Amino acid sequence: MRAIVKTHRAPGLELQEVPEPTCGPTDILIRVRHAGVCGTDLHIADWDEWAQGRVKPPVVVGHEFAGEVVDMGKEAAGQFQKGQTVTAEGHIVCGHCRQCRTGNGHICRFTQIIGVDRNGAFADYIAMPASNVMPLDGIPTTTGAIMDPLGNAFHTVLSPDIAGSTVLVLGCGPIGCFAVGIARAAGAARVIASDVNPVRLELARRMGAQVPLNAAQEDVVARVLSETRGEGADLVCEMSGHPSALKQAFGAVRLGGRVHLLGLPKGEVGLNLSNDLIFKGVTVYGVIGRKMFETWNQMRSFLSSGLLDPTPVVTHRFPLANIDGALEAIRSGAAGKVILEIGG
Amino acid sequence: MRAIVKTHRAPGLELQEVPEPTCGPTDILIRVRHAGVCGTDLHIADWDEWAQGRVKPPVVVGHEFAGEVVDMGKEAAGQFQKGQTVTAEGHIVCGHCRQCRTGNGHICRFTQIIGVDRNGAFADYIAMPASNVMPLDGIPTTTGAIMDPLGNAFHTVLSPDIAGSTVLVLGCGPIGCFAVGIARAAGAARVIASDVNPVRLELARRMGAQVPLNAAQEDVVARVLSETRGEGADLVCEMSGHPSALKQAFGAVRLGGRVHLLGLPKGEVGLNLSNDLIFKGVTVYGVIGRKMFETWNQMRSFLSSGLLDPTPVVTHRFPLANIDGALEAIRSGAAGKVILEIGG
Amino acid sequence: MRAIVKTHRAPGLELQEVPEPTCGPTDILIRVRHAGVCGTDLHIADWDEWAQGRVKPPVVVGHEFAGEVVDMGKEAAGQFQKGQTVTAEGHIVCGHCRQCRTGNGHICRFTQIIGVDRNGAFADYIAMPASNVMPLDGIPTTTGAIMDPLGNAFHTVLSPDIAGSTVLVLGCGPIGCFAVGIARAAGAARVIASDVNPVRLELARRMGAQVPLNAAQEDVVARVLSETRGEGADLVCEMSGHPSALKQAFGAVRLGGRVHLLGLPKGEVGLNLSNDLIFKGVTVYGVIGRKMFETWNQMRSFLSSGLLDPTPVVTHRFPLANIDGALEAIRSGAAGKVILEIGG
Amino acid sequence: MRAIVKTHRAPGLELQEVPEPTCGPTDILIRVRHAGVCGTDLHIADWDEWAQGRVKPPVVVGHEFAGEVVDMGKEAAGQFQKGQTVTAEGHIVCGHCRQCRTGNGHICRFTQIIGVDRNGAFADYIAMPASNVMPLDGIPTTTGAIMDPLGNAFHTVLSPDIAGSTVLVLGCGPIGCFAVGIARAAGAARVIASDVNPVRLELARRMGAQVPLNAAQEDVVARVLSETRGEGADLVCEMSGHPSALKQAFGAVRLGGRVHLLGLPKGEVGLNLSNDLIFKGVTVYGVIGRKMFETWNQMRSFLSSGLLDPTPVVTHRFPLANIDGALEAIRSGAAGKVILEIGG
Repeated sequence: MRAIVKTHRAPGLELQEVPEPTCGPTDILIRVRHAGVCGTDLHIADWDEWAQGRVKPPVVVGHEFAGEVVDMGKEAAGQFQKGQTVTAEGHIVCGHCRQCRTGNGHICRFTQIIGVDRNGAFADYIAMPASNVMPLDGIPTTTGAIMDPLGNAFHTVLSPDIAGSTVLVLGCGPIGCFAVGIARAAGAARVIASDVNPVRLELARRMGAQVPLNAAQEDVVARVLSETRGEGADLVCEMSGHPSALKQAFGAVRLGGRVHLLGLPKGEVGLNLSNDLIFKGVTVYGVIGRKMFETWNQMRSFLSSGLLDPTPVVTHRFPLANIDGALEAIRSGAAGKVILEIGG
Repeated sequence: MRAIVKTHRAPGLELQEVPEPTCGPTDILIRVRHAGVCGTDLHIADWDEWAQGRVKPPVVVGHEFAGEVVDMGKEAAGQFQKGQTVTAEGHIVCGHCRQCRTGNGHICRFTQIIGVDRNGAFADYIAMPASNVMPLDGIPTTTGAIMDPLGNAFHTVLSPDIAGSTVLVLGCGPIGCFAVGIARAAGAARVIASDVNPVRLELARRMGAQVPLNAAQEDVVARVLSETRGEGADLVCEMSGHPSALKQAFGAVRLGGRVHLLGLPKGEVGLNLSNDLIFKGVTVYGVIGRKMFETWNQMRSFLSSGLLDPTPVVTHRFPLANIDGALEAIRSGAAGKVILEIGG
Repeated sequence: MRAIVKTHRAPGLELQEVPEPTCGPTDILIRVRHAGVCGTDLHIADWDEWAQGRVKPPVVVGHEFAGEVVDMGKEAAGQFQKGQTVTAEGHIVCGHCRQCRTGNGHICRFTQIIGVDRNGAFADYIAMPASNVMPLDGIPTTTGAIMDPLGNAFHTVLSPDIAGSTVLVLGCGPIGCFAVGIARAAGAARVIASDVNPVRLELARRMGAQVPLNAAQEDVVARVLSETRGEGADLVCEMSGHPSALKQAFGAVRLGGRVHLLGLPKGEVGLNLSNDLIFKGVTVYGVIGRKMFETWNQMRSFLSSGLLDPTPVVTHRFPLANIDGALEAIRSGAAGKVILEIGG
Repeated sequence: MRAIVKTHRAPGLELQEVPEPTCGPTDILIRVRHAGVCGTDLHIADWDEWAQGRVKPPVVVGHEFAGEVVDMGKEAAGQFQKGQTVTAEGHIVCGHCRQCRTGNGHICRFTQIIGVDRNGAFADYIAMPASNVMPLDGIPTTTGAIMDPLGNAFHTVLSPDIAGSTVLVLGCGPIGCFAVGIARAAGAARVIASDVNPVRLELARRMGAQVPLNAAQEDVVARVLSETRGEGADLVCEMSGHPSALKQAFGAVRLGGRVHLLGLPKGEVGLNLSNDLIFKGVTVYGVIGRKMFETWNQMRSFLSSGLLDPTPVVTHRFPLANIDGALEAIRSGAAGKVILEIGG
């Protein structure tokens, strides 16, 4: 079958013919129709420091996908039907540790990520443990292919008091734009979104941000305060990892509010914990992955019911063979979400 | 000033001239513009068993209202301005008990209700403790006048997992119709509403119910199950107090779901706790009043931002002098919310 | 191997020689050392109405046990070692439904219970799905054998505000007595326990109940109110299923308190929902099984650290062959927890 | 009356004769029996940078106290009796803002602190708003005098999952030592406490710490991991504000655990948010003051029932006139909690 492979410990990705994966007794074999391209894929292609420390070539890349069931292992039979469209959680967890056994598989310390630690989804076929596979129930595979990053956004946004609240989204990449749409669908009264890239801000506006702020031109904290009678935002979703955005997060959150951190800062960030966090009685939560599988249920409910339409964020589509074009679109900064058309 | 008074221990209400209330040191004096008429007022007018046991005439009736500040006691100065439009929580609580001191004033055992236990709002003026008064911040007094029952609906609906959920509202009186609108605004994926009265069901549909069910013609539990792939509703809001609706509530709620009880059943109701509650792992919550003052903040946020428009539920308006017309409209079963036009 | 078998659709249990269970690819084969005898086993022995509707003989009975690992299926290898002592969750759930995938396997609608719906633990060997098996990590198998009912008690007692609270336990059978000990270990300020059986009340007292009440001689609600300055209990754990205890539960719970229902009432129970639940702002929760596997983690932590010693509740031990003696001890009302000594 | 006064904008405190405070209409006048001396009082005495920016002499210092009611304002009559022993929340909040109206008065932005922003408790008498006053209900005034810092410890420790958990307390000053005792009383399975001062560690051990760690001699993170099978602590209470302890906090917390920050770091602290917080799915909460008044209720329940005995932490007592001796004891690092004996 065709696959995009990280072949060597050096920059670049290659389209190759590789053997089809075998379907183990507890696995589901899936023919991939669509796959999402992520910043992580770019890191692997560019062979940056993180990739050098983590990835062991050769490995098929890609961790966001949807497709149709073509085979089932003996122990997995009965849960799915051939031809059924599905997507999958790309974090393969141990299932036995304390975290996995208490609904916190997203922080299992034995996690293997497809397309990073084992063969992934930029290929005609992928075999996945049945417990990771999710029926799409009518959601199109173009949307199914981006439910991994969409799930990150759901995990970041859906705090219990979201209805009627003011939400600030810092960073309007695809996950930030999804977060804007989710906050609106979940009844946020006001969504403020900030980025330095006008293309991304326009996507955020299309996803429902009532107050798009260009952080290169405006004082984000001052604007948030002026939009909230001086109180600040109830929930800040930090999606960029930039040190300046982190300062804005703590400056703009209200007394007693929440800051959810999804963007990954590099190295250390200096924070004034006394003024920004302790005196304000703030709660901070580190967001990693998707809750298994509460987040997936929420997502399917929002998507199936039409509460949320994530498609405006999908700005580019490429055939599998043009992975370089897909990566270039991401590099350009002009893309929202980029997907690969593989099968179907 | 004019006031609608329960004058004697017998059916009926009278429009009378009474002295203006005095404004104590911790009070706010309010000129009433609009007031909501409630089933409770009907009980008092009709002098039913409950009223006979609770109400001590003479008393000015009415507990839902909005108006403008005309005077402030010495200890309350500085919090409000004359001319400011306000509404008020009608439950006057002790402020000192354990419940009051932990944000649970709605279950203070020393509660006095205006229009029931002390003089109320169907009058040109009312004096209220400053701590019960809420600025309207631009919300019109016609809406301010119904924030008491609207708050009941917010208290019933806003559970943490509302976004993306399926909500069943049993009973489409004004509070049930408000509940429908709130559930939609808070991101419920699907709202099913049930009543035996087609006029009320039509109001529920206008407030956003996607599945209005006539309980006189349809099997409510069966329909809820068929609308939810056999799972049942995540949240059931029981707003009627009818024994049959209570059975439906427990039959239609999903495993692990929630039943919020607002409607007041008369006497005992027989429940199969083993099958309906314990084996299903259900949580039941008794809803009384509004959380002081978390519910009021939520309400102002929904109303100010335009997330919720409760006005379709307001079907009738009467001048103060025509309280009998207002009560008759409620008795007819053809009314949503009925309000009195008093001042302004 | 030896096993206690329900052989026919009639009263009685028999000790028989039956084939050893086979160990499937995802199973663990366990040699049973100790097993707990439960009221459910009594229902099956006596062939009451519930048993007639549920149990399909022949079936090996018993669902509470601990023992040592003797074999592992191919897919389960690596998680356990031979000789390791373990216990197991006796509810075998589907693993795929919404409940199972969100940490709520205790309400999976496809649950099979060992010793009821499939062969159980009153036998020399039992095969269990690896995902149900729990390492004992040094907890003795005599305690491991009763972690199923102990888990029911943990699930009932451990609400978030337990520390510093007043807890009322209605019904001092083994699970009620465990509940008393757990409440004390979790920092309840005062534990009140009620039963009509003086032997059971004495066990409750030994487990830490500061106020044991004989419900045949005292007015439970009045005593709870007098012990709590008229406020009532923060948490009521109803472990009996008796209609009179249910009335006491709602009468004795404080405004805004919680009632957790574990005891299974037969048929319908009449409740005054308005006075007892709605006006009081009470929350009711139906407790079934153990949370998979949050409850098990809590239990192991309490037991391993010595916070809780459940052994005073274990009043009787019998060899496997004397199952009739064990059942008779339960029938007598003089027993706490009864265990069978099988292997080891 | 006698009072310890900050008289000028310079180091030092003076014992002076000043007029008794007047008791306003909503106030309670209290004769002070005992008062606690806090690090804040030391900052004011030493006139450090923080004090210079905040305190406006002349002001009576002291914010932790207990005493007896000697007079009540007209609007406050009926809530208390003369001679009743009481303590008081020293943060006087506005009562009208969003925070105050939703049970979050501890983060009211209009807070005035007694002994800092207005006259305090190191005096024969103090007048307090009735809404801040708490009956002691039999708790001795020596304990009542330290309920302010004890409340900080309760606010830090009492997270919902405390029972059965492993708690790490970083910094064993008085509040840290209180935290140790509270964690044990609330059913923590294991409490690890760290400090560089052996005297303080010994106090922590006496309050119940099973694992006292001298951070000058041991690798705190390594020890916590070895004590928890490599998992880390469920809850870390950071009571010191030291940058090294903050690093330890994030290193020692388990995946999905909580870090509660009470100690106030000076200036910026560098944190590796990606590794320490985001990838670990950690929640951080900034602790300020005491929840009004949930924390006070919890405290009274723990103290009245005997669950917690904080007296081992009280190591020194001085007469009011010897405030210098009290401050010197704190400076020495050899003190736990220091109290002043004023009246009674």
